[in-house]
Amino acid sequence: MENPSYVFERTALYYETDQMAIVHHSNYIRWFEEARIAYMKDKGYPYSKMESMGIMIPVMGVDCKYHRPVKFEQTVLIYVKIAEFNGAKLEIEYEVCDKETGVVHITGHSKHCFVRSDTFRPVRLKKDHPEMAEIFE
Amino acid sequence: MENPSYVFERTALYYETDQMAIVHHSNYIRWFEEARIAYMKDKGYPYSKMESMGIMIPVMGVDCKYHRPVKFEQTVLIYVKIAEFNGAKLEIEYEVCDKETGVVHITGHSKHCFVRSDTFRPVRLKKDHPEMAEIFE
Amino acid sequence: MENPSYVFERTALYYETDQMAIVHHSNYIRWFEEARIAYMKDKGYPYSKMESMGIMIPVMGVDCKYHRPVKFEQTVLIYVKIAEFNGAKLEIEYEVCDKETGVVHITGHSKHCFVRSDTFRPVRLKKDHPEMAEIFE
Amino acid sequence: MENPSYVFERTALYYETDQMAIVHHSNYIRWFEEARIAYMKDKGYPYSKMESMGIMIPVMGVDCKYHRPVKFEQTVLIYVKIAEFNGAKLEIEYEVCDKETGVVHITGHSKHCFVRSDTFRPVRLKKDHPEMAEIFE
Repeated sequence: MENPSYVFERTALYYETDQMAIVHHSNYIRWFEEARIAYMKDKGYPYSKMESMGIMIPVMGVDCKYHRPVKFEQTVLIYVKIAEFNGAKLEIEYEVCDKETGVVHITGHSKHCFVRSDTFRPVRLKKDHPEMAEIFE
Repeated sequence: MENPSYVFERTALYYETDQMAIVHHSNYIRWFEEARIAYMKDKGYPYSKMESMGIMIPVMGVDCKYHRPVKFEQTVLIYVKIAEFNGAKLEIEYEVCDKETGVVHITGHSKHCFVRSDTFRPVRLKKDHPEMAEIFE
Repeated sequence: MENPSYVFERTALYYETDQMAIVHHSNYIRWFEEARIAYMKDKGYPYSKMESMGIMIPVMGVDCKYHRPVKFEQTVLIYVKIAEFNGAKLEIEYEVCDKETGVVHITGHSKHCFVRSDTFRPVRLKKDHPEMAEIFE
Repeated sequence: MENPSYVFERTALYYETDQMAIVHHSNYIRWFEEARIAYMKDKGYPYSKMESMGIMIPVMGVDCKYHRPVKFEQTVLIYVKIAEFNGAKLEIEYEVCDKETGVVHITGHSKHCFVRSDTFRPVRLKKDHPEMAEIFE
């Protein structure tokens, strides 16, 4: 991936494998979440801070392509990039590559919106929290 | 198991397997929870009812013995039995047997207490909710 | 969904919830798998049979849209439909609806190919296993 | 824990929480596995090496006590200690403590045996692999 916003390292765990002896395909959706939360923390917005700001970023959709499976004990780098952000909606792109070879194993996206954690009503991030909006631009 | 309080049927799912091609050992703790919640519902106390009563039954401890692994698509019966109940503490016993052969695969226990969901303070079930205490006796 | 190929019933489990008190978004990918395997079994092709035929149906991609969250103890119907099948590739569509109200909560797709389980080489299903190809048409 | 054999650091992930807003109790069994595998790797026996030696260490039993819940984003240290080892059977003890305060949250054990990965027959570790037996003594 060119110009990633963040790189997250992860090693596949034993309990993430299935009987094909590969990481079960549902787990990459969880890895995307881990990488996304680490990215937010790296930019100064750990979950606890967003919580105290009264903001939630629910997942509206995900997609994932399985190019090559990841195996137990394999270490990958998950590249994270903001694919689109218009102040109300956010799309994040992910690329999971073998740490040693750089070969692409998994790619995907997640789509999000911003809501107030009490009312679940939309937050206009650029207007209400411009300093937070900046991290996605 | 002699005189079980409840019998719960479950079929092992694909994503519950690991690369030894057996159900990962952590999942039986989840099956115990499923069986326990189904048992409570069967006795007239679905989770939603306990919630509206303001009662939670947190897990204080679990143990599990793995006699024989369970495989994908295998159907088991999970026998549930109240092992001990003194009004404040509850111990539940589980036995996971193959549905066809009856062979024991997994055994275990979970220990619980009763607390108010707002204050987390102990509930004396026999005194405060005698009709609910009865289902454990 | 109009003309579904199969309908699968599922109740959300306690351990599937996250701290937003809704089913964690990764679990619907697992529900799709459950519904897909149940559908195959219903059509006469349980996993064990495909295994003995030496065929695997790996997941090439998934996507999922989260319209409304599903909550613990909520029972849903998962409608399954073959969206596309050309003998080599298969796309399945899913719709997760509340059992009582029929309201759509989750929609998604999974894409698959057919490979020999020993060589991982593609299987031309229509030619090699026409009777199995029929269930997707 | 006095004289631990190994210390493993872990931060609770979002998808590990449940609707009580704490890490679901089944996940600690998975954390024990992570800590155990990291310990083995640290002692020179990564899973891949044992695999090439033809040895498996299946789980015979686990127990777990929940003293205090762990919350999302909380970082803990998991202390690992060999509780018992007689050449044929192995018992490992775990203590999960808050990294900052040192307060004990979770304690537990896992019991294991050693088998050949092809025949599943017991391995006498002290006799057959004395250099590996040493790491448990």
